[in-house]
Amino acid sequence: MKTILSRISKINELDSKAMAKAKCYIDELTKPIGSMGVLENIAIQLSGIYGNEKLAKPKCMLVIMAADHGLTAEKVSVYPQVVTRQMVENILAGGAGVNALLKANGYEFVCVDIGINGNIAADGLIDRKIRNGTNNISKTCAMTLSDAIKSINVGIEIADMQIDNGVTVLGIGEMGVGNTTCSSSVLKAFSSLDSHLIVGRGGGISDEVLARKILLVDEIIKVNKPDKNDAFDVLAKVGGLELGGLAGVIIGAASKGIPIVLDGFISGAAALIAYKLAPKVRDYMIPSHLSAEVGHKWIMDILKLKPYLDMGMRLGEGSGASIGFSFVDMAVSMVNNMATFDGAKVSRHH
Amino acid sequence: MKTILSRISKINELDSKAMAKAKCYIDELTKPIGSMGVLENIAIQLSGIYGNEKLAKPKCMLVIMAADHGLTAEKVSVYPQVVTRQMVENILAGGAGVNALLKANGYEFVCVDIGINGNIAADGLIDRKIRNGTNNISKTCAMTLSDAIKSINVGIEIADMQIDNGVTVLGIGEMGVGNTTCSSSVLKAFSSLDSHLIVGRGGGISDEVLARKILLVDEIIKVNKPDKNDAFDVLAKVGGLELGGLAGVIIGAASKGIPIVLDGFISGAAALIAYKLAPKVRDYMIPSHLSAEVGHKWIMDILKLKPYLDMGMRLGEGSGASIGFSFVDMAVSMVNNMATFDGAKVSRHH
Repeated sequence: MKTILSRISKINELDSKAMAKAKCYIDELTKPIGSMGVLENIAIQLSGIYGNEKLAKPKCMLVIMAADHGLTAEKVSVYPQVVTRQMVENILAGGAGVNALLKANGYEFVCVDIGINGNIAADGLIDRKIRNGTNNISKTCAMTLSDAIKSINVGIEIADMQIDNGVTVLGIGEMGVGNTTCSSSVLKAFSSLDSHLIVGRGGGISDEVLARKILLVDEIIKVNKPDKNDAFDVLAKVGGLELGGLAGVIIGAASKGIPIVLDGFISGAAALIAYKLAPKVRDYMIPSHLSAEVGHKWIMDILKLKPYLDMGMRLGEGSGASIGFSFVDMAVSMVNNMATFDGAKVSRHH
Repeated sequence: MKTILSRISKINELDSKAMAKAKCYIDELTKPIGSMGVLENIAIQLSGIYGNEKLAKPKCMLVIMAADHGLTAEKVSVYPQVVTRQMVENILAGGAGVNALLKANGYEFVCVDIGINGNIAADGLIDRKIRNGTNNISKTCAMTLSDAIKSINVGIEIADMQIDNGVTVLGIGEMGVGNTTCSSSVLKAFSSLDSHLIVGRGGGISDEVLARKILLVDEIIKVNKPDKNDAFDVLAKVGGLELGGLAGVIIGAASKGIPIVLDGFISGAAALIAYKLAPKVRDYMIPSHLSAEVGHKWIMDILKLKPYLDMGMRLGEGSGASIGFSFVDMAVSMVNNMATFDGAKVSRHH
């Protein structure tokens, strides 16, 4: 806990002077003022985060956290629990959706076992297993407070490792069968929103299973009574190990002045936990797509973030964050590669 | 005219068998069915266009058409007419917004002078100037029917040239001070929508100028009386040379089985002209972003296309199409790089 609080205390406000300078410079570029929309916002935000109106070419890295969920026993997911392990193997072998998107854009990833149920013998997996998945949160708490804290610390450690290696932009993704139910529970714990609004179809469940899943989320909150004013309590009672890990990545990155590109619903739930622990992290978050999973828009509303991609995607894994990286690259390219009106001798007005 | 009609007659329906095969294969990939959203739609559309469920790595090329507009005399643009020439020089020198986005993603462009007012001495410009800009369409027709036809033929020629060079995906962009007014006039000619709905701020005009621009579009329609059932007539009376050129690129590409990635409002007006000439071209269009220029959403509604990017951009130049190329690449990467459930030994269900 001490490490986490210490890191939270190191998260700075964005550098408003650098942001003002960046805005001035961007307004000098050969385009109508504001006409590059969110790319301008991203560039200004990056200047605020890095404390410099000049931007270096980004080095992006996606962190995928994988863990299992005891609530898969309730069978509200399309896939059985073993698919978490199988899909992590698939990701490590390069065959998952997120790999295809990373390859298309030339980005890299690391994958962390923070709580998969069972062992994986595959090259490249970072083993930080805290336990073999969470408990069934419809019966009891997900994990102990101690394990919840450990999960956040793992995320901070992984962020540090990447930043030490020269990474300047982190993205987050996940794999964990059952984690839409868990994420809806986290969102409900903080927001008290009606479950009908925030429980979605995950991998594609039927109407009948969706109805059970909605009741299950109500039950999860009733059984655990998470304290919405204590994000550690919410994480320990109704969260997941990968959610804690990703919240840790966000806190670790923000405390070292590094932006975090978000993914969809589950990464959003992790972002919500990080935000409740440390509201300043919000300014370090760069949204990417709006997930087709219904709860995501509610999380974006709470975080006051506006995703600029609406692709009907609901894959997770960091697929949206992978695309988001390219928007960071484009924003930096705008600042570094465009001419100014004076430089290119373009008339500004009549 | 004969060439255009002949090319239109060669535009095929998409290959529904190849699309069905593509859909089946995509549903075998290790992801929940439909979870990659528009990327799945794009991949299936590409299979229909190319007539093959297998997709080769795309070779994308942006075609930027530049021309001037006599209506700049009415001063409803932020910039004077000379900015068309200056910005084309800037694009050729690599300093415009579109260059920054192309560079970030590794794509190329060609730029065509189809009617810039004045000469440009810059390497790389393709000279197909038909005339030194259009007439002032608030006083008379934009150009003769003969010049309108020439502009479409130039587009077809440029598309052919690129396709002969191995390009498999064309994108369209433009530069032409005054062309939002002209595009609003084209949209109004076809749709009869109220000018308040479809006339926007272009480069960023004031309320006062916007009010004049709205009245001007009404006047343009009143003076020219374009026949909404004759797209040649609309183009000649209230269009622009770059709009005709881009409509030609679309028709040329579609008639050779090549998809076209759209940009924002002006490219949308060109797409509308192409669609009215040859409704089948619609199936070859891949939308990219929704422009912040108000008229764009009306064009997308008419074309029944749903842009998946909402970035508040209103730059033109092909900036949105440049981003759109990366989604084509991602869609193809999804098909070519993802494992199947059987191949990766991932369980499909309980």
